[in-house]
Amino acid sequence: MDLMGGDHGPEVVVPGVALALERHPDIRFTLFGLQPACRPVLDRHPSLRAASTFVPCEVAVGMDDKPSQALRQGRYRSTMWRAIEAVKTGDADVCVSAGNTGALMAMSKFCLRTMANIERPAIAAIWPTMRGESIVLDVGATVGSDAQQLFDFAVMGAAMARSLFEIERPLVGLLNIGVEEVKGLDEIREAGRLIREANLQSFEYAGFVEGGDIGKGTVDVVVTEGFVGNIALKTAEGTARQMAEYLRAAMSRSWMSKIGYVLAKSAFDRLREKMDPGKVNGGVFLGLNGIVIKSHGGADAEGFAAAVDVAYDMARNGLTAKIENDLNIYHSRRKALSAVATAQSPD
Amino acid sequence: MDLMGGDHGPEVVVPGVALALERHPDIRFTLFGLQPACRPVLDRHPSLRAASTFVPCEVAVGMDDKPSQALRQGRYRSTMWRAIEAVKTGDADVCVSAGNTGALMAMSKFCLRTMANIERPAIAAIWPTMRGESIVLDVGATVGSDAQQLFDFAVMGAAMARSLFEIERPLVGLLNIGVEEVKGLDEIREAGRLIREANLQSFEYAGFVEGGDIGKGTVDVVVTEGFVGNIALKTAEGTARQMAEYLRAAMSRSWMSKIGYVLAKSAFDRLREKMDPGKVNGGVFLGLNGIVIKSHGGADAEGFAAAVDVAYDMARNGLTAKIENDLNIYHSRRKALSAVATAQSPD
Repeated sequence: MDLMGGDHGPEVVVPGVALALERHPDIRFTLFGLQPACRPVLDRHPSLRAASTFVPCEVAVGMDDKPSQALRQGRYRSTMWRAIEAVKTGDADVCVSAGNTGALMAMSKFCLRTMANIERPAIAAIWPTMRGESIVLDVGATVGSDAQQLFDFAVMGAAMARSLFEIERPLVGLLNIGVEEVKGLDEIREAGRLIREANLQSFEYAGFVEGGDIGKGTVDVVVTEGFVGNIALKTAEGTARQMAEYLRAAMSRSWMSKIGYVLAKSAFDRLREKMDPGKVNGGVFLGLNGIVIKSHGGADAEGFAAAVDVAYDMARNGLTAKIENDLNIYHSRRKALSAVATAQSPD
Repeated sequence: MDLMGGDHGPEVVVPGVALALERHPDIRFTLFGLQPACRPVLDRHPSLRAASTFVPCEVAVGMDDKPSQALRQGRYRSTMWRAIEAVKTGDADVCVSAGNTGALMAMSKFCLRTMANIERPAIAAIWPTMRGESIVLDVGATVGSDAQQLFDFAVMGAAMARSLFEIERPLVGLLNIGVEEVKGLDEIREAGRLIREANLQSFEYAGFVEGGDIGKGTVDVVVTEGFVGNIALKTAEGTARQMAEYLRAAMSRSWMSKIGYVLAKSAFDRLREKMDPGKVNGGVFLGLNGIVIKSHGGADAEGFAAAVDVAYDMARNGLTAKIENDLNIYHSRRKALSAVATAQSPD
């Protein structure tokens, strides 16, 4: 755990980790933080102290630091770097940080490197839907993806769905602007062809899905390029915030609606939880040699704990091994096929 | 008015037009429809009959017809074509149809042609925000836009904002995945440069905005490429629908919340109206020699009337002339500048 990230640092992260420990008493934590900021907060959580090792570090990466700046100043010695490094050395199964996304991704790539056969990592978001939750990736790790990269996203997202939702063969869709096979961008059509041809056992391909299908939960995994995924995610979060604001305004309009609000308060509380984008937490970095989870910078303790919950499931279900295994099956089969093709070729 | 479009055809469109007439008694309608389907519905709306001319046509374009098929079967003789043609001939100021978007765009391009200096038309959506309404374009007329096309979208969107919101100098932002000038795709950065350099009087450039800014109403006009805009729009509509469903479920959970619901009913009714994506209606086709408005296929009479409201404002405020004027200023200035540059060049 990187204790120093997020808008409120250890004041929120430490209680968040303590909450997660209550839910999963079998976790053992290694906590990376600046001594002066963390000690007083940790002292208020004795059971967390007992279940964890605190590693004092020298530097904390700022929320507004540029990735290059964070790498220059924080490599080898920042709380963020040390937390990622613990995954590399095998001391930890997974790293969680609420620190700034650009710096976290840059350090994760530098420290863990991308998996064999994976050109680019992706950030996967867990999206609340009418049917439960879906995974949407990439939501902004990189801009622009070719067909092969979209294919890799599908494989990685499906492995994550199997780890997180514990379903055997998740349904995967490619985000597009029409459901007809003819529509959309060339690379998306080509990715659809690659996926159909590969015909992998690890997931079922559902074809194209549209923006409105994400919230419906039409598929378990929605695959898209990072620019589009980021715009979709932030637009949906903005819409949820807007709806919550409309609700607040409507309920405070007359004394009748105010009384109604009081009577329905517990329903409203549950609703607020569902509508709060911060509650559904944990952007998961996929495609690296190890799992790194980014918690929302603005999340409260409950939000950070939700990110740790995700980390717990990913680690327990061996996400990285699942992805490696699926990619190996695909690439070795492709190699075999191309060897056959070469042997059969007339020259 | 094309009476034959939408999921319910004249049964919904005719009452919608009648509603719009009540609000704007100065409108005179020309109604294009199939005689057998329209006559009985029109007979139930005598004041609309009195304020309109009914033109019986031979063909109605199907909601699932491909654009090419619609053009082949419906050119010159379908209700859709005839309604668009009325704009071309000057018999109408604006055309409204709830028919299928692809066919309507294909026919509009074929019949009206794009404006001088405009390479591609755009579809502009009117987006409800926390501060009122904003315009987002393109939401799916075409996929992929270069910097010059994004620039044109900015000019057209600003002209629409001036016509619809009656503000003198609307604020225009480019949709991107970070607010720093360095981020995002090349064409978006380049479009930002073009807009800054042009320094037009017709709008103020606010720089980059993110997905979350759309619902906040940070700017009056959000400019983006059609694929991204379509995904953002449909994702937001899906999220609004999802929130409405959460609300419904939460309110019917206990007898307390049910009583609360009854007491707050009028507040909920207002809220439902705000949360209903169908209510905010009217995708406006921009960049053609005439205004065509697409109403949601699934909209009810109130929704269709909202599209007619938009049409009324656009026509009354001379949207097409505004766009032409702004583009002319820009292009003649650019021509003058390049003439100066040529005259000054050493060869």
